[in-house]
Amino acid sequence: MQIRYLFANCDKVLHSGGLFLSLSLYNMITTDLLIIGAGPCGLFTVFEAGLLKLHCHILDVLPQPGGQLTEIYPKKPIYDIPGYPEIMAGDLIQNLMKQIAPFHPGFTLGERAETIIEDDGKYLVTTNKGTHIKAPVIVIAGGLGCFEPRKPPLPNLEKYEDHGVDYFVKRPMNYAGKDVVIAGGGDSALDWSIYLAKHTKTLTLIHRRHDFRGAPDSIAKVQELQAQGLIRIITEAQVIALEGDDRLTSVTIKHDKEGNISIPTDYFIPLFGLTPKLGPIGHWGLNLDHQAISVRTLDYSTNMPGIYAVGDINTYPGKLKLILCGFHEATLMCQAAFHYIYPDKKLSFKYTTVTGIHELM
Amino acid sequence: MQIRYLFANCDKVLHSGGLFLSLSLYNMITTDLLIIGAGPCGLFTVFEAGLLKLHCHILDVLPQPGGQLTEIYPKKPIYDIPGYPEIMAGDLIQNLMKQIAPFHPGFTLGERAETIIEDDGKYLVTTNKGTHIKAPVIVIAGGLGCFEPRKPPLPNLEKYEDHGVDYFVKRPMNYAGKDVVIAGGGDSALDWSIYLAKHTKTLTLIHRRHDFRGAPDSIAKVQELQAQGLIRIITEAQVIALEGDDRLTSVTIKHDKEGNISIPTDYFIPLFGLTPKLGPIGHWGLNLDHQAISVRTLDYSTNMPGIYAVGDINTYPGKLKLILCGFHEATLMCQAAFHYIYPDKKLSFKYTTVTGIHELM
Repeated sequence: MQIRYLFANCDKVLHSGGLFLSLSLYNMITTDLLIIGAGPCGLFTVFEAGLLKLHCHILDVLPQPGGQLTEIYPKKPIYDIPGYPEIMAGDLIQNLMKQIAPFHPGFTLGERAETIIEDDGKYLVTTNKGTHIKAPVIVIAGGLGCFEPRKPPLPNLEKYEDHGVDYFVKRPMNYAGKDVVIAGGGDSALDWSIYLAKHTKTLTLIHRRHDFRGAPDSIAKVQELQAQGLIRIITEAQVIALEGDDRLTSVTIKHDKEGNISIPTDYFIPLFGLTPKLGPIGHWGLNLDHQAISVRTLDYSTNMPGIYAVGDINTYPGKLKLILCGFHEATLMCQAAFHYIYPDKKLSFKYTTVTGIHELM
Repeated sequence: MQIRYLFANCDKVLHSGGLFLSLSLYNMITTDLLIIGAGPCGLFTVFEAGLLKLHCHILDVLPQPGGQLTEIYPKKPIYDIPGYPEIMAGDLIQNLMKQIAPFHPGFTLGERAETIIEDDGKYLVTTNKGTHIKAPVIVIAGGLGCFEPRKPPLPNLEKYEDHGVDYFVKRPMNYAGKDVVIAGGGDSALDWSIYLAKHTKTLTLIHRRHDFRGAPDSIAKVQELQAQGLIRIITEAQVIALEGDDRLTSVTIKHDKEGNISIPTDYFIPLFGLTPKLGPIGHWGLNLDHQAISVRTLDYSTNMPGIYAVGDINTYPGKLKLILCGFHEATLMCQAAFHYIYPDKKLSFKYTTVTGIHELM
């Protein structure tokens, strides 16, 4: 294997030329804990590790921290974060980013963990873009895995990806003053229609059924925007063709009663939900149970020494996929990671209320 | 035993005259979950139980909800509540009270759980004031147990309790414009000296050693207040006598070098820490390990069916006494409690983000 070969050489460099040379040669990131997944549990791991003076680097396939919370439902309220009667998902992530800031984690965003090898008693993870990250401990906090959008079955769909077809609304301002067609009947389609309609030139929302599936108040809001002429809603219809040269210029929809209609548009955003996939991590040799990583509840360790899994991606008897449970798992896991890295060091347990954060750093 | 006898009769009443009669006869509170301890974990249990439509009643020996957080350090910041870079302990409790309000828990405050008996397949707990609470599930969320202040060995100490001698700072404004003597060398003595010095007429801080044990910045702050003339610090000294008729009017301190000094004062607040005691619960037949209740990590159940323990009062391999861990324990425990109460009902897991709180109620 190419990577094994590369690092067989790297080892030689390490032994002969020293750490600095190897870092500059391979642009390798080194840290105590490599956290895969920048969702709430991955982020909070930085805090608990930081209290134990362990440094963290976070890797995530998404372009910003927050996982599902920023990617899928940033404007949705969460009610079951202890101590918050209600908090917007995006705000929770902002608060967590502030909470971990004193510990200066590293971030590699927009890259996916691909391969893992053992190297010199540590793990070396390489991303799909060739970034190398080396750490004695790997924490998999990958949520529901790498999300993949459910794509409509249109023959020339891929041609227009990034040329008018988007599966995520990453930069809402890209759509300002443009003609936009959104398809879907759930909360994501409704929420983004509501949000974008204020900025687009025209916004058409297409749903193949008569009734929307989303929250009642979102449905009411969409209908209100329709009455104001800001959204055009077409139900019982589906997009059946995409047209355009280099870029998308129109879509054809098939309406159950009115037949085919052509709609000129700059963008087509199908929001049919996401399919979670464990991705390459599923082939690392970890014990799996239904696309989740089996862990011990003592310390949320996996079958591979030094690799832990916390949050929605792990499973154990009684597991609940709740953010608050992941916070607990991350906390206990960090204690175990400390002892794994420093088997001979004693860990004195300190309350932040007594010592503060900065003195622990 | 008197209580057993009473409830042997009660059983008869229940069987002959029905539930209503027994309730009116004994002023009995009935609920799904009796939670012993109104600290953060006890409070959050109400939320998680409420999501499963289980009703809770909370019993606490302290006169207000919040446990240690309101009783001992309401004005201290906590840094390790996930999503809160910093929150005052008292504010966390207020937020939790707001979070559980939709589920209308009952409260019995200022009473201590004394005895437990099995009655008709449920548990009946009786308090030191004779209140009877009956529930199929008991959740012990008693924190570090019933706290008792460490008292200085002064012969007439009890005489002045509530007449000038206080072991807790419950209402800081009581000390405004008064002469106050605080004794102790830890964080509690330092923090309260800093806090109260702005309001008192005079504040004297006495410590029997030369060096304080508290946080370095608290020590620096106390010294700064001394330089400003707001605190008088006397180290290597101890209070050896209390004087006054009905109320305390002065204390005598013995200084290692300068001999005895009399200090006129309205209040003497010895802050020598608290001794946790498990109290009567320690004799209920629960498996204990060093004054903590042994639980299974599957569901935080104890050796007694239907009795669970969450938060600082429980222990298991890897246990950390952190509020955030108690939140997780309470959450998993509620699922188990539901199945214990309704062995045949299926529980469909719902996210509050999807359904909201009010739809779950």
